[in-house]
Amino acid sequence: MKLGSLKEGGRDGTLVVVSRDLKHAVKAAGIAATLQAALDDWANVAPRLNALSADLDAGQAAGAFALDMTALASPLPRAYEFVDGSAYLPHVERVRKARGAEVPASFYTDPLMYQATSAGFLGPRDPVVVPSEDYGIDLEAEVVVVTDDVPMAATPAEAAEHTWLNDQWFGAAECGVDMQFSFAELVAHAAKTRPLTAGTIVGSGTIANEDTGKGASCLAEQRTVETLRDGKPGTPFLKYGDTLRIEVTDAHGASIFGAIEQRIAPLVR
Amino acid sequence: MKLGSLKEGGRDGTLVVVSRDLKHAVKAAGIAATLQAALDDWANVAPRLNALSADLDAGQAAGAFALDMTALASPLPRAYEFVDGSAYLPHVERVRKARGAEVPASFYTDPLMYQATSAGFLGPRDPVVVPSEDYGIDLEAEVVVVTDDVPMAATPAEAAEHTWLNDQWFGAAECGVDMQFSFAELVAHAAKTRPLTAGTIVGSGTIANEDTGKGASCLAEQRTVETLRDGKPGTPFLKYGDTLRIEVTDAHGASIFGAIEQRIAPLVR
Repeated sequence: MKLGSLKEGGRDGTLVVVSRDLKHAVKAAGIAATLQAALDDWANVAPRLNALSADLDAGQAAGAFALDMTALASPLPRAYEFVDGSAYLPHVERVRKARGAEVPASFYTDPLMYQATSAGFLGPRDPVVVPSEDYGIDLEAEVVVVTDDVPMAATPAEAAEHTWLNDQWFGAAECGVDMQFSFAELVAHAAKTRPLTAGTIVGSGTIANEDTGKGASCLAEQRTVETLRDGKPGTPFLKYGDTLRIEVTDAHGASIFGAIEQRIAPLVR
Repeated sequence: MKLGSLKEGGRDGTLVVVSRDLKHAVKAAGIAATLQAALDDWANVAPRLNALSADLDAGQAAGAFALDMTALASPLPRAYEFVDGSAYLPHVERVRKARGAEVPASFYTDPLMYQATSAGFLGPRDPVVVPSEDYGIDLEAEVVVVTDDVPMAATPAEAAEHTWLNDQWFGAAECGVDMQFSFAELVAHAAKTRPLTAGTIVGSGTIANEDTGKGASCLAEQRTVETLRDGKPGTPFLKYGDTLRIEVTDAHGASIFGAIEQRIAPLVR
């Protein structure tokens, strides 16, 4: 099952079920008006969304329409919580090596995790508005799971019951290797001293592989690799007018989520 | 105008207007069902809430009832954003001195700010459930403002138009001195590279005064003062069964927000 949100309908958008091939969608308004509302009552809502998804993929969903990617908001246009782990240690090792620092031993057993901003996610084709190029404009590719309610001090096994994601995510080599902690472990870590509210986004951290031939998932990472290799970075940060595209494909090359395509734009006041 | 949320009505509670003396309340359901809904449409909703508040204080609001503090949820039971500054430099200076570190010069001109968890605030009389006393259970007193929508790169003067708070907050000596940055500056700092969504909470950081005779606003702070003075901390962290009370009073000793009264409790699974 794939879910998305149209920009229409207010700050939280309008929930749609998207076909497996990303070509069609159908509003889930009779089931839940928004993705947050669906997550707030996930146990009851999920089976009904799954049934609608099956109908859509069978070409039998009433009201299905051709999906226009530019009409999409972020799946959760505003979320209550985004905690981001550093599950890919090659990234941490590389950045620390560049400044001559060791990676603390605890990093391999305790996920490093920070609280990230969550209240204003851009749509996948929206411009990225930045006040100044001088800030050093970067990108970052990672994968996330969205939880329903997770009780405080849940174990990793219990936490796994609260994550919903397409299992194919782990089939992509770049994401599937070098991830030191599973999402279940990351969710359990985030819930160690507090419950997580439905709609909590838990991120993997920047994807990075031991094999630098796989490329990097952010410019800072690439510049670090270059600095270690050449003594100075060769790749510049992004400039106004630059465009970026981030996509996750399955083993057959098919797009799983559809592509994020964004252009860097100046702030107009 | 004072606003609060009853625990009834769902995850976001039920918006009430509270009388100036904190003794009575009236549901604002005809105006906005929840505080978040009010913030989402603040320019239209605020005048109507102000009118209801005036009626309540005049003893003329239909449906007014005696306020039971234990029936209150947090004003925003779940919020999209909580960014917390370190506006009280005496706290930072003291903690750094204890470990022999300097305060970077930038701290006096650029507010240090972190993204804090916002999705599960406790009610003011709810127990504080903690999985283990070994974690070192602390408390922290600070003041916050809640914004409506703040555009990216707003100036402090512009940011001040988006903060709503009772001016009396600044009349209390403990909060009103030693605050290096105004809330307008903190909001502008948080919005430097992104807009802030309505309902964003911006915190002052732990309140601390140069005058240590004023006491401390968190145990770590108190233990630091003791370590600097006595060589070791004398005040223990909190234990199960301990209770805490946090209250802000005006110049006449009247409670502004009502007291937070909470008991530390073990996690029962």
